[in-house]
Amino acid sequence: MRVLGVDPGLTRCGVGVVEGVAGRPLTMVGVGVVRTPADADLGHRLVAVEQGIERWLDEHRPERVAVERVFSQHNVRTVMGTAQASAVAILCASRRGIPVALHTPSEVKAAVTGSGRADKAQVGAMVTRLLRLAAPPKPADAADALALAICHIWRAPAQNRLQQAVADHASRGPRRPPAPHPSKGRTA
Amino acid sequence: MRVLGVDPGLTRCGVGVVEGVAGRPLTMVGVGVVRTPADADLGHRLVAVEQGIERWLDEHRPERVAVERVFSQHNVRTVMGTAQASAVAILCASRRGIPVALHTPSEVKAAVTGSGRADKAQVGAMVTRLLRLAAPPKPADAADALALAICHIWRAPAQNRLQQAVADHASRGPRRPPAPHPSKGRTA
Repeated sequence: MRVLGVDPGLTRCGVGVVEGVAGRPLTMVGVGVVRTPADADLGHRLVAVEQGIERWLDEHRPERVAVERVFSQHNVRTVMGTAQASAVAILCASRRGIPVALHTPSEVKAAVTGSGRADKAQVGAMVTRLLRLAAPPKPADAADALALAICHIWRAPAQNRLQQAVADHASRGPRRPPAPHPSKGRTA
Repeated sequence: MRVLGVDPGLTRCGVGVVEGVAGRPLTMVGVGVVRTPADADLGHRLVAVEQGIERWLDEHRPERVAVERVFSQHNVRTVMGTAQASAVAILCASRRGIPVALHTPSEVKAAVTGSGRADKAQVGAMVTRLLRLAAPPKPADAADALALAICHIWRAPAQNRLQQAVADHASRGPRRPPAPHPSKGRTA
């Protein structure tokens, strides 16, 4: 599975492509940052983010896109830009029919470091180790994008099993309550 | 001047086109709502908003787009969807080179009712009167989109004068401090 991770932002939008399956060593395919000038108007910045994401999709043809889920409890100005950049990334992928998954920052940290409260340095160190890189990717947004992709690859089997269970349940109809006296001697 | 007003939202994105100039009666060209299903995933919803906005731009060819400026002090879930829908609207206009202006809800209310704290009914009533409609546009998002367009047309002359003053000032260089003893008998 090839996944593009996107750490959304207007000033720096981290992008990283990772290939692999859960339980096997992963490979970094590419990493970088889409930047837009802080003094440009919002419209031009969103167009620049769109062009940047489109280039990464064209070049690396990911099968999945993993985007950081944005919360609004943080800084007001920053979070709006982050939400808007994430909308552009999600739009670009969805237009091409590429499935998009959202992961919270703590899910990503927990996936790569074992702790949902790990700091940036710890995430960078684990991304470097897991992808067997010579040095942590800079800036932190680039490392975070790779961590998102890794998180998605590792969580995907569990998510697929969950979706399958939901689909099976839906196709069978609601589960009946257990019989008061289960019949013995027969299994399905 | 023909302006498309956009009251951004994922469930209901209000759109309204108004034509006119400040100081003259205004004309409604079109009004409607772009809707996306609440149970669809975010990517599909953003693609649907994009398609809807593109149809309005294609059909009405506005010279300006006015979008409500989103703040994050409101409900967390709602505001993220609003920010993301607004990003798509701004992106669609900017990709075509159409200038986009953002107006706050209180600027819009003050423009059409005289009070920045007017309620929805008051805004609806004034939009109906100003555009000489038979009844207030429904839902409120549609009326708000028209109010945004009206606000933009009325504020544009002031904004243009301001931008011109800034540009003039920049081309003349910084203003010198006043002379301690102004010379008499000469004016520029």
